[in-house]
Amino acid sequence: MTSSEPARFRVGLLGHGTVGSAFATLLEARAAQIELTTGLRPELTGVLTRSRGTFEEIVDGSDLVVEVIGGVDPARDYVLRAMRAGRHVVTANKQLLSLHGEELWSVAREHGVQLRFEAAVAGVVPVIRVLQESLAAAHIERVHGIVNGTTNYILSEMARTGATYESALADAQRLGYAEADPTDDVTGRDAAAKMAIIARLAFDTPVTLDQVPYEGIEHITADDMEYARELGLGLKLIGTAERIDGGISVRVHPAFLYGGHPLASVGGPFNAVTIESPDITEITMSGPGAGGPQTASAVLGDVISAMIPPASTSEPSQRLAIVEDVVSAFYLHLEVADRPGVLAQVAQILGMQGASIKSVVQKGLGQNARLVMVVHPLLESRLRAAVELIGRLEFLRSPPRAIRVIEAEFT
Amino acid sequence: MTSSEPARFRVGLLGHGTVGSAFATLLEARAAQIELTTGLRPELTGVLTRSRGTFEEIVDGSDLVVEVIGGVDPARDYVLRAMRAGRHVVTANKQLLSLHGEELWSVAREHGVQLRFEAAVAGVVPVIRVLQESLAAAHIERVHGIVNGTTNYILSEMARTGATYESALADAQRLGYAEADPTDDVTGRDAAAKMAIIARLAFDTPVTLDQVPYEGIEHITADDMEYARELGLGLKLIGTAERIDGGISVRVHPAFLYGGHPLASVGGPFNAVTIESPDITEITMSGPGAGGPQTASAVLGDVISAMIPPASTSEPSQRLAIVEDVVSAFYLHLEVADRPGVLAQVAQILGMQGASIKSVVQKGLGQNARLVMVVHPLLESRLRAAVELIGRLEFLRSPPRAIRVIEAEFT
Repeated sequence: MTSSEPARFRVGLLGHGTVGSAFATLLEARAAQIELTTGLRPELTGVLTRSRGTFEEIVDGSDLVVEVIGGVDPARDYVLRAMRAGRHVVTANKQLLSLHGEELWSVAREHGVQLRFEAAVAGVVPVIRVLQESLAAAHIERVHGIVNGTTNYILSEMARTGATYESALADAQRLGYAEADPTDDVTGRDAAAKMAIIARLAFDTPVTLDQVPYEGIEHITADDMEYARELGLGLKLIGTAERIDGGISVRVHPAFLYGGHPLASVGGPFNAVTIESPDITEITMSGPGAGGPQTASAVLGDVISAMIPPASTSEPSQRLAIVEDVVSAFYLHLEVADRPGVLAQVAQILGMQGASIKSVVQKGLGQNARLVMVVHPLLESRLRAAVELIGRLEFLRSPPRAIRVIEAEFT
Repeated sequence: MTSSEPARFRVGLLGHGTVGSAFATLLEARAAQIELTTGLRPELTGVLTRSRGTFEEIVDGSDLVVEVIGGVDPARDYVLRAMRAGRHVVTANKQLLSLHGEELWSVAREHGVQLRFEAAVAGVVPVIRVLQESLAAAHIERVHGIVNGTTNYILSEMARTGATYESALADAQRLGYAEADPTDDVTGRDAAAKMAIIARLAFDTPVTLDQVPYEGIEHITADDMEYARELGLGLKLIGTAERIDGGISVRVHPAFLYGGHPLASVGGPFNAVTIESPDITEITMSGPGAGGPQTASAVLGDVISAMIPPASTSEPSQRLAIVEDVVSAFYLHLEVADRPGVLAQVAQILGMQGASIKSVVQKGLGQNARLVMVVHPLLESRLRAAVELIGRLEFLRSPPRAIRVIEAEFT
């Protein structure tokens, strides 16, 4: 190996479905950046599918194994054998961890390898990392989570359109948010597996899927949604893990949330988790909960974490220019003497700078009149020039005030 | 050392103000749990204040140094010397990192030590960890953040009560949310330092505080707030770091946010950060941004991360009982034949099980009547027993539906 050839980091991939193929694509797209960040060049050295590859070859040729087969068999056997062979493992397999987590974590400890599983719970929402690292010794009282994107999408659509459960489910299936057989999602079983893993980490006590009672959303009606809307409540499939009387309760069921709850506004296929602890009050994290590319991104985050030494900030790989003049929409507030031609003059100055008025309201009368307007996005330098000119108009009673507006189409 | 004496992990503390003393208290309170999790017993082996301790003694006697002095001098010198002596460093010092980050990170790399700084940005909201680990190789397009709790508290109070800036600031000072000299907070300079650090990590390019233009909230008026309320907009002090035309822009200024923006609903002294990337759509994280105990908790999270091997899940330290029967408020939906005495019979059954009705609405008439009610929190077994009995009443036209309600007082 010459100095111009960086060391390789060999990744073996078990499973090549939606997540597996998205991961392979993403790894290739990001390989150069990962090499800059870690000094190691990641390479996919083997892929196991039903029709190609053998498990033994893939383990032999890898430093780390990604398991995205799903289910317990043969995933459990593969993960155990990979770790016993000294390989780090990254898995997205919530079912496996919620049923056999203790066995897997114990083998990882014995063999000094990393077993990472951020993608198993809430997709790119980094709840595992936060529980295992940021809050490793915090006393956690309760975790509330929306940890199934399919059901959150269905409930959001029922709330938004008044649709029945059946019709919202059919829509979700058409759009790819629900599988052809949605049983695991709509019954709450998928969420229960994730809550078992969350509770294990939050309370440092063994919790398995069979200890988590769950109810699904199949019986929610448009009536219930209407009631929620009338009272300003959100209806969500909520996972709860909490301390009660020296023990714990972990469960999944639909629940009405009052409007101010951090999870009430989480809509569509998003996931979100609120962690409550007297040490920190609470943290809420939200983001896309599923989908091939998103889950693949969570898997890749775990792979990179296994490659880099802890808490290193690598040398900057680039020096991007700082852009001084950016585009923004603006709110303008002008205190003016109310006389004919005021708005026309203001509009003319704005127009000369290329500022287009989106809305304008005149408030008050006579010497107390105010013009409040919103202008469409333009370069800030142009807006500043306009404000400078407007400020010199003799009917202005005080300097103009300009505040930026961040609009929906901007995000 | 006998086998019953665990290895020690020696922590030296530089600074003993609000955060430093909260950290010392928290470390002691959590030491036993940390020992269970990590196998190492953390000990505070030295504290440097103006009147006690010497820097040299503290570094000599520690494995890791916590720097919570703040400011550039002498913090910069101390952090550099500690790392050159082979000590890991955890710091909450945003000013230091936003001005001298590259020098510090480079020395950390050279000496193979960890330099962690989660507490420097957004308190317990784990934005540093997520940028450095979960999204280490993601292509990030934009970060929006509310990264100053003082200004968010002031703006929230102005919005809520119609107060002027001056009076909301005075309230914030009285309640400890603003310092006696609030300049750094209200001018946006504090937020600008945090955005410089965020941008450095998000875009892998050097960014320093002097490259971040900032505007504060001193000129926001009650009028602006009224306008925001009328249009359903939130007015926040927003930090932005985004890619533009192959370069980047990093800035801090007040901005109106449309109601659906994930940051629009972040109120009080909370911080929140939204990270946008085509790989993941977006992640939003929120939580308390400052305060001694919260910042201390973020510092402790970093200290523990430096103690544990990466991605290890420790053996459970306890086996908590699973509580089967928990307390919930409930919504009940009953389809009934509308005849005299229906509500009385339902209420009687609920009363026998100890369920107290909070509200009840009758909808529809005759054969289509429905009773919709909310009952106060009670053991779920009691509610189920009541529902079972109600289901047998002959005027019920379909099985009763019960859905849990999570109320404000419950969280």
